[in-house]
Amino acid sequence: MSNTIGDNLKLTLFGESHGDYIGATLDGITPGLKIDYDYIKDLMSKRKPKSYETGRYEEDSIEFISGIFNGFTTGEPITVLIKNNNTHSKDYELLKDTPRPSHADFTKFIFSDGYADYRGGGHASARLTAPIVALGGIILKALEDKGIVITSYIKSIGDIEAPSLGIDPTKEELDKLNEMDFPVLGDKKDEMESLIEKVKEDSDSIGGVIETVAIGLKAGLGSPYFNSVESKISEAMFSIPGVKGIEFGLGFNFSKSLGSQANDSYYLKNNEVKTKTNNNGGINGGLTNSMPLVFRLAMRPTASIFKPLDTVNLKEMKDVTINLTGRHDPCIVRRASVIVRSLTAFVIADMLMEEEGRRALK
Amino acid sequence: MSNTIGDNLKLTLFGESHGDYIGATLDGITPGLKIDYDYIKDLMSKRKPKSYETGRYEEDSIEFISGIFNGFTTGEPITVLIKNNNTHSKDYELLKDTPRPSHADFTKFIFSDGYADYRGGGHASARLTAPIVALGGIILKALEDKGIVITSYIKSIGDIEAPSLGIDPTKEELDKLNEMDFPVLGDKKDEMESLIEKVKEDSDSIGGVIETVAIGLKAGLGSPYFNSVESKISEAMFSIPGVKGIEFGLGFNFSKSLGSQANDSYYLKNNEVKTKTNNNGGINGGLTNSMPLVFRLAMRPTASIFKPLDTVNLKEMKDVTINLTGRHDPCIVRRASVIVRSLTAFVIADMLMEEEGRRALK
Amino acid sequence: MSNTIGDNLKLTLFGESHGDYIGATLDGITPGLKIDYDYIKDLMSKRKPKSYETGRYEEDSIEFISGIFNGFTTGEPITVLIKNNNTHSKDYELLKDTPRPSHADFTKFIFSDGYADYRGGGHASARLTAPIVALGGIILKALEDKGIVITSYIKSIGDIEAPSLGIDPTKEELDKLNEMDFPVLGDKKDEMESLIEKVKEDSDSIGGVIETVAIGLKAGLGSPYFNSVESKISEAMFSIPGVKGIEFGLGFNFSKSLGSQANDSYYLKNNEVKTKTNNNGGINGGLTNSMPLVFRLAMRPTASIFKPLDTVNLKEMKDVTINLTGRHDPCIVRRASVIVRSLTAFVIADMLMEEEGRRALK
Amino acid sequence: MSNTIGDNLKLTLFGESHGDYIGATLDGITPGLKIDYDYIKDLMSKRKPKSYETGRYEEDSIEFISGIFNGFTTGEPITVLIKNNNTHSKDYELLKDTPRPSHADFTKFIFSDGYADYRGGGHASARLTAPIVALGGIILKALEDKGIVITSYIKSIGDIEAPSLGIDPTKEELDKLNEMDFPVLGDKKDEMESLIEKVKEDSDSIGGVIETVAIGLKAGLGSPYFNSVESKISEAMFSIPGVKGIEFGLGFNFSKSLGSQANDSYYLKNNEVKTKTNNNGGINGGLTNSMPLVFRLAMRPTASIFKPLDTVNLKEMKDVTINLTGRHDPCIVRRASVIVRSLTAFVIADMLMEEEGRRALK
Repeated sequence: MSNTIGDNLKLTLFGESHGDYIGATLDGITPGLKIDYDYIKDLMSKRKPKSYETGRYEEDSIEFISGIFNGFTTGEPITVLIKNNNTHSKDYELLKDTPRPSHADFTKFIFSDGYADYRGGGHASARLTAPIVALGGIILKALEDKGIVITSYIKSIGDIEAPSLGIDPTKEELDKLNEMDFPVLGDKKDEMESLIEKVKEDSDSIGGVIETVAIGLKAGLGSPYFNSVESKISEAMFSIPGVKGIEFGLGFNFSKSLGSQANDSYYLKNNEVKTKTNNNGGINGGLTNSMPLVFRLAMRPTASIFKPLDTVNLKEMKDVTINLTGRHDPCIVRRASVIVRSLTAFVIADMLMEEEGRRALK
Repeated sequence: MSNTIGDNLKLTLFGESHGDYIGATLDGITPGLKIDYDYIKDLMSKRKPKSYETGRYEEDSIEFISGIFNGFTTGEPITVLIKNNNTHSKDYELLKDTPRPSHADFTKFIFSDGYADYRGGGHASARLTAPIVALGGIILKALEDKGIVITSYIKSIGDIEAPSLGIDPTKEELDKLNEMDFPVLGDKKDEMESLIEKVKEDSDSIGGVIETVAIGLKAGLGSPYFNSVESKISEAMFSIPGVKGIEFGLGFNFSKSLGSQANDSYYLKNNEVKTKTNNNGGINGGLTNSMPLVFRLAMRPTASIFKPLDTVNLKEMKDVTINLTGRHDPCIVRRASVIVRSLTAFVIADMLMEEEGRRALK
Repeated sequence: MSNTIGDNLKLTLFGESHGDYIGATLDGITPGLKIDYDYIKDLMSKRKPKSYETGRYEEDSIEFISGIFNGFTTGEPITVLIKNNNTHSKDYELLKDTPRPSHADFTKFIFSDGYADYRGGGHASARLTAPIVALGGIILKALEDKGIVITSYIKSIGDIEAPSLGIDPTKEELDKLNEMDFPVLGDKKDEMESLIEKVKEDSDSIGGVIETVAIGLKAGLGSPYFNSVESKISEAMFSIPGVKGIEFGLGFNFSKSLGSQANDSYYLKNNEVKTKTNNNGGINGGLTNSMPLVFRLAMRPTASIFKPLDTVNLKEMKDVTINLTGRHDPCIVRRASVIVRSLTAFVIADMLMEEEGRRALK
Repeated sequence: MSNTIGDNLKLTLFGESHGDYIGATLDGITPGLKIDYDYIKDLMSKRKPKSYETGRYEEDSIEFISGIFNGFTTGEPITVLIKNNNTHSKDYELLKDTPRPSHADFTKFIFSDGYADYRGGGHASARLTAPIVALGGIILKALEDKGIVITSYIKSIGDIEAPSLGIDPTKEELDKLNEMDFPVLGDKKDEMESLIEKVKEDSDSIGGVIETVAIGLKAGLGSPYFNSVESKISEAMFSIPGVKGIEFGLGFNFSKSLGSQANDSYYLKNNEVKTKTNNNGGINGGLTNSMPLVFRLAMRPTASIFKPLDTVNLKEMKDVTINLTGRHDPCIVRRASVIVRSLTAFVIADMLMEEEGRRALK
């Protein structure tokens, strides 16, 4: 029942795909952070569709209507609004009573007792991730100023797999990925883009995997049990439409491993405790251990495809076959990567606040 | 900073492995639920170690010290205590300054500024899952009385994979799994137990995968965005020590799928909307769709193994090699399955409460 | 650090007095509630200033930008925006470094490390209560449709005291108060308005007391201990600028009473359990008892007055005397009453949701 | 539905008056705080009844069963248990179906659908405040070590009123009050105790007022709107059985004041911003202003008196008159003062944590 995430730093989403505005409110922010509008604009541009993605191009001109004064955060809630201009609501009238398979149409119909705004997926639309990125730009920049850098890049599209960052990547390596429009390591970019274009021609869609790496985190962040780093990150990530799996470090490969293979031995490096391997993705016992935080997300192929789809007419209660019109991404992995990066920043900032706050009685 | 999970039904954990008691408090429970002590006892017995698992055998006699009156819930907080009897604290003195690799010892040392109770993993010990199971028995039983049945069974140990339940399993199939001490489908039980015994002889440990299936859920449970069903379940599951990955439905296999393969078509079955396949594990757009809820967890091999382990002496700040004594499971998959099932029940109950509560203004 | 209130039904505020918009988001609302725009408009008009109050007249044209579709709530977050048109920011430049006594100027300066938006009180301005009233209209109407009616009326202005509703008031009596622009019982209206005008002429301000009565509440709402009805209502009420005291039932008069005078005896009325007196304001042990909920709020005289005010120049760090310009209410009691009524509706709705949700496991 | 309070530092209560144990869990505590057992013991002794109060004398030997290791907090949840020894459950059998007027008996009966533990008030008993005091001792001591001192003393019993602390009290003045068994300023102690004894002889009870003063708070603590200092303190205080009103600074006297009388002018004192008066009780705009925090609580006379009481038999649904047996305080003001002081410490600690945490991104 809640569109809010975070314990100390709270993010609240609102809006529908075809309403006047979508937006988000960020509450609990540190006062005195300088807003870097170019940074935010650049981040937003990474989420914009390319020619082979959705035909819906939104200018996404963002308005910060509160919480910023003279270019700095005030510590009061920051609300960002993004106007919906390019809505083709007529494309969706057909779907009013015939939910698209594997979309939120049917479940939202039940959730809302039939009152949901079905146009363009309504509140469930991935369009609502745009304000997350706009606000994410404030957090990502503040973290970078503290030496914490986060990247989210394409690990695979369909069967095409790209390399990962090494065990101890540099800030420069992460920055380079963050500058790319199609963030991928190695030489698989062309092959991946070709696959996406081919899938599009076939009126189909394709899934993929996004890998995220964060460096510069001190040890001891996170909490015991129910607020483990994994708990907080996964809670946030599964709010991104299309995410259906998450794994930290070796993840599902742990299940086939022996303890002697999977353990990360400690050693001293420049008098700091580090691990020789990073199979656990920078987390032990739910807390950061100062090694890079590493996790991967499984992304579903887009549900909206242009092949005949079997579904049900909810009004007439009979089986029907529909053909979608409208504008849809054949692959959301590239665009989702910047959303993942932004949301990761919120979770890390929230944990930093908790960690500082906890010491207050000393 | 919080050992509490849940929005409507709240579960709070406390205690350390070698303290006087471990325990948990459940707040927000429906009044008038009958406590089935045999059900709870049976559930607790599933979490107990077998001969090839840990040598620490705890009687786990549970005391409900509040919230139950004349055998029924009162609606007030239920606190359960479990006494720690069989503590071998001396086994852990050695480890005071030398954290075990891939354990919480080091990260808790930093988290606590050096004040953590290091004995037996302290608060990070998997022993704290015992009260979760004790309270889980109350919830599981209440859900079953409403037609919601949950099972968590072994999908794989190391490379040995067992079959899954079908797309539309019966209550009887789930009940049968829930009665097993070693819940697994097909004929792999002996092979799996042999592998665990062999790994134990090698002073090693092994990982595995747990699959969970819940039936009887109505459509429309869950919430948009930050409280998606996947968000709430993953947040809970990653609090279980050793869980490093989660996937819903096809999960990571989605990343290699086309939309035309992955979509679940709707159709009418006895005038109810169902899906022909269940690739999405019963969840669309973060909400249940009335199909079985299906997810899998990747479990790490136990970090405590009896081979020489490279670590650091935090007091003398030098690299050292240690040899563990004490009692440790070579594989936690079997015992963890009942914890997963119990925690799943909390999350589902919490969502049911939210769903009922939301209608209150009509 | 949080601008959000409510456990099930959540209200989040954002905006500054002189920003582009102020607004609020309501999350967790029941789907399918019909929006009565006339009801909302009428409620908003009650908050508008009269000739003897502030010179700042805002059109307060409200925009609901999400969560409403075809005139009904969808169950998704409802965000309301109100544009700030009539800002006289220049009036406040003087005050940048010289905080007004008993205002939030100084404390916000410290809170924000000097980055606060000081114009017109910024985020601390009572203007932020406008969106509370706009959203309150949705809740109040839904409650009325369920037989729950709330009124907040003027109990006193300065030394002038008006009568209270009786122990068992009718819906008609409450409705009548809710229709008044200056909601007061008895014949003290003219006297009170004269006092306010006189105080205004004296460049001064005056306080008062608001009494709230809610009827139609079933018994058993609320929670033990930390979420008592009194806890939840007082938490909400003290967010209204100028509220400095709250009392339930006899309130501070309890402190001078004997138990034999203060106890409310039970008796049967039409086979329902009622109390003969209602000294406890409809609450026993933190839970409603089905009698009218009754509480009173002490309102401070407005801090902004047009007499010379002693304060400190924070930049030059010296004592100074300032003279305010700008527009200020000499008495906020009348306008605050509709805010109190609206916020009371949120708290009651939140408790109803909790109460329904809690039964979900039966 | 929640027995938990606090955003950063969380306090959860459990237990019933006649159960095996009552207890509480404190989560989010700073690690490395030294436990001063004498301090706690002394604090607990202040809550114990005197000869003229309840006949129920509980040894209140407290057991900290988690979160403390080698005499220091570990940062993990601290659970305290207090055994119920001196229960006279038989005294309450009579009351099973006949709720005591102005007690929680009837409302809990409805809340629990008839399943409540009615013995001694069950979960609603003031006995549950004992663990609050036990844990409060940890927080109060930590705050004192940081220069923050809190006192809660008797302002009035019935019509007998005692003086208040001055505008700028010293630590020594507060300490002196904190050492008293019957904390009151001036010479009214004997008169007040005589009144209580007289009321007891009359089989009656009497109310009073508790004043709380906290010094050493920096400016800028608290939050805008819904988490104002007043909101957080009142939310906590109304969980104490018998509290029916709260006022900050002038409180209800504000309602009769002119702005020119009520405003607190700023001035510089040793180059720090202070106010000449403290009518606002140390709070402006919901945030602390570094002046002493001052609030008063109205306490009801105890509902349990030994005169014939009119009530209803819920089983037979008829009006009846009952006579209470058992043990009851004729006045709870003195004993409640130490509970108020303890709970105030939690709220202040919670705000300090928030304030520190919020700066974490700088």
